[in-house]
Amino acid sequence: MKAFTIFGGTGDLTFRKLLPALYNAGESGGPGADYRILIIGRRDYTDEGYRELAREWVRKYARLPYSEEAFGRFAGRIGYYRMDFSDPAAYAGLEEYYEAEGVDGHIFYLAVAPRFFGVIADGLAAVRGARRGKVILEKPFGESLAAAGELNRRLEAFFDPENIYRIDHYLGKEMVRNIQTIRFTNPIFTNLWDARFIESVQISALEEEGVGTRGGYYDTSGALKDMVQNHLFQILSIVAMERPAQFSGPDMHAEQLKVLRALRLPEAGEARDALLLGQYAGYRAEKAVAPDSSTETYAALRLFIDNDRWRGAPFYIRTGKKLGRREMQVAVVFRRPSSDVAHDVLLIKIQPTEGVYLQFNIKRPGDTDEVTQAKMDFCQSCSLENRINTPEAYERLLSACIRGERSWFSQWDQIETSWRFVERLRELGRAEGLPVLNYEPGSMGPPEADALLARFGHGWFH
Amino acid sequence: MKAFTIFGGTGDLTFRKLLPALYNAGESGGPGADYRILIIGRRDYTDEGYRELAREWVRKYARLPYSEEAFGRFAGRIGYYRMDFSDPAAYAGLEEYYEAEGVDGHIFYLAVAPRFFGVIADGLAAVRGARRGKVILEKPFGESLAAAGELNRRLEAFFDPENIYRIDHYLGKEMVRNIQTIRFTNPIFTNLWDARFIESVQISALEEEGVGTRGGYYDTSGALKDMVQNHLFQILSIVAMERPAQFSGPDMHAEQLKVLRALRLPEAGEARDALLLGQYAGYRAEKAVAPDSSTETYAALRLFIDNDRWRGAPFYIRTGKKLGRREMQVAVVFRRPSSDVAHDVLLIKIQPTEGVYLQFNIKRPGDTDEVTQAKMDFCQSCSLENRINTPEAYERLLSACIRGERSWFSQWDQIETSWRFVERLRELGRAEGLPVLNYEPGSMGPPEADALLARFGHGWFH
Repeated sequence: MKAFTIFGGTGDLTFRKLLPALYNAGESGGPGADYRILIIGRRDYTDEGYRELAREWVRKYARLPYSEEAFGRFAGRIGYYRMDFSDPAAYAGLEEYYEAEGVDGHIFYLAVAPRFFGVIADGLAAVRGARRGKVILEKPFGESLAAAGELNRRLEAFFDPENIYRIDHYLGKEMVRNIQTIRFTNPIFTNLWDARFIESVQISALEEEGVGTRGGYYDTSGALKDMVQNHLFQILSIVAMERPAQFSGPDMHAEQLKVLRALRLPEAGEARDALLLGQYAGYRAEKAVAPDSSTETYAALRLFIDNDRWRGAPFYIRTGKKLGRREMQVAVVFRRPSSDVAHDVLLIKIQPTEGVYLQFNIKRPGDTDEVTQAKMDFCQSCSLENRINTPEAYERLLSACIRGERSWFSQWDQIETSWRFVERLRELGRAEGLPVLNYEPGSMGPPEADALLARFGHGWFH
Repeated sequence: MKAFTIFGGTGDLTFRKLLPALYNAGESGGPGADYRILIIGRRDYTDEGYRELAREWVRKYARLPYSEEAFGRFAGRIGYYRMDFSDPAAYAGLEEYYEAEGVDGHIFYLAVAPRFFGVIADGLAAVRGARRGKVILEKPFGESLAAAGELNRRLEAFFDPENIYRIDHYLGKEMVRNIQTIRFTNPIFTNLWDARFIESVQISALEEEGVGTRGGYYDTSGALKDMVQNHLFQILSIVAMERPAQFSGPDMHAEQLKVLRALRLPEAGEARDALLLGQYAGYRAEKAVAPDSSTETYAALRLFIDNDRWRGAPFYIRTGKKLGRREMQVAVVFRRPSSDVAHDVLLIKIQPTEGVYLQFNIKRPGDTDEVTQAKMDFCQSCSLENRINTPEAYERLLSACIRGERSWFSQWDQIETSWRFVERLRELGRAEGLPVLNYEPGSMGPPEADALLARFGHGWFH
């Protein structure tokens, strides 16, 4: 029997995402539907007690309808094991537990702070077969690049690097998975996908919420580390990569990594053209945030990829909290034949709406040759059927891990490359005295972010 | 004062199209709103009597709302002049009439059978200033190519060739005018507009109606002469032409003509790959149709344009009466990367719906990499505002004639080239014993039309 073990099984991620995803996966009969689910935590629950707790979360958050019968099937697979996973001595007991349950194959989900990654990996040495198991990690992968590197080494010392699955939950999103289909199955896009035809690519991840209760974590992280170097660089690399030989993990990862490695650091004195940071008014008064914090809650970047495909077409990235809109999307802005017509734009809408929008020029109706825009919207998530039938990110990611489909996960070398690039860029900015600009909650970020693009004759697409 | 004179002013075209168009043009204050409107016919009407007749047609067919006041303004411009325009001696009286009215500038609309074109042109020699006027012709321009050429010579002997405006009312349609905008202002289409990226172009003009009361005319004409060599070849030439230096009459005409001249006649023995004719069951029993008629009511063509842009991408044309659908559209079918995904298709919908449709591949929602299609529809005519504000073809064409914008009209050299091509193609077919295939009313034409495309790995897009 195989087991899906969650370290940190009494945390928010487990309740809101993992249990509902496992329930959905079980009910749709996907891979892993027969796995035992072992919850590890420090609190004292019986199996029954934990199952009752799980019931409410599943009822509330599962995509598929809740029923007593279905939940009964699901709950029957759940066991709870109390241990202090930071205590190496505790793992002998865990081994006994698996032994008694007849578990002979493993997926470990580390829903814990990164400082525990090492001790868990070390402790699992006591569990037979754990070394051949898979392990799933959540970001942050460490508090600094150096620390993350060290944790990675400890994990790779125990697990096969091919069995380490690093969650970037944006990679599980429907429209992020769709980017490669849209790019590579449509000649109308494939053949135009380079700097000859594309003026800029704009990746936006705008949030309306502030840091909320996560101020303590966020204040040590900031927008660059929380959003840009992982999620948005992953998306950028899929948008920009060359066609992989196969759309499998190793080929995709290699192409994505090439893109990340080709990101050009600005020359000395030019960091201001590449990076802009902001902080919303009121952020320093948020709970658990330092009263003199200079952490950025907004970042805009102007990046260039130094290869033949993209030379001359900037990639603009922006993300921020407490903005006037919640929206994640990729806008591909095509060059225009003259400045008196609008740009053709292909918009891949990732959230909250999932779909594709295309804007191009047509004649204004009537006895005129004036030009106006045809605006076409394909909203995938607007269909109820699609919403019910579309598994959420975590459900897909767990399924992909079980199937061993690594293209849905980020790789250590990608993380390291992105992280290093972002750190260097920030360093350059610091050296040039780049300010953290103030912006009003409910705005679209610092007005200077518009000016940044305007300096180069561009504008954010909305 | 200038006059807009209609020969054949008591015919259907005048009542249904010209009078409503002139009323609309007057009310929108477009060019020609101050022209005197002189109706010439053989019947006996007073000005008042004709105006009353006109009132009902305007009320019924004008795009703009009817009001007594507006109609009063319009009617005040209308005069009726009774004459037998086939009698050369009658034109001296017409000259006197113009003289008395103070008319010193002319547009003549020949809403008459082509056999009268010559006698009218000759007669107008008696009218001062007529030679410098403009003349508008309706198809058919003659019953045979030779006859049409002869009529053209007689017209050009009197009028400046630059002042002869040949109506092809499809050229006045909103979405036909839109083709050049869509093609040339959008890099996403401009850069893909050739045989490297386009697999085929399909121009369809499907009608649900039969020949109705027009059997006598139609039986001497048929689908090739009635639809293909004029309307559909005009559309084909706009879809296929090189970018003109200016979107003005002479430049557009030159580019369109180059396309028509580059149409490749099939080799001997290959007419069957290029032409397919059909006749609907029951056609021979239609009023005024010969009981053994072999006139085609359906035609499908597979054409090649012998130039660098289009070598290897066929243009398919099909048109017919008594079909299961009423629909005129241009489908641009792009090549696909593999046979397991659908074609990207850009559809320019000309009538009855006016708009643009685009179909491309996306990932099927959910935990799958299967491909499905995003179908995006931009319906221009679905907006009531657009319907009211969009002048109909005749209104635009009259306005274009007054402004001297010749790109909205077909040219004699285009007509001659198209006509000759179609005659030669038909000759080749005849020599190879090409049958006129039977098809069922309400069907999509002869099933062989599907087989024609299938032989080349293609299919009609719907």
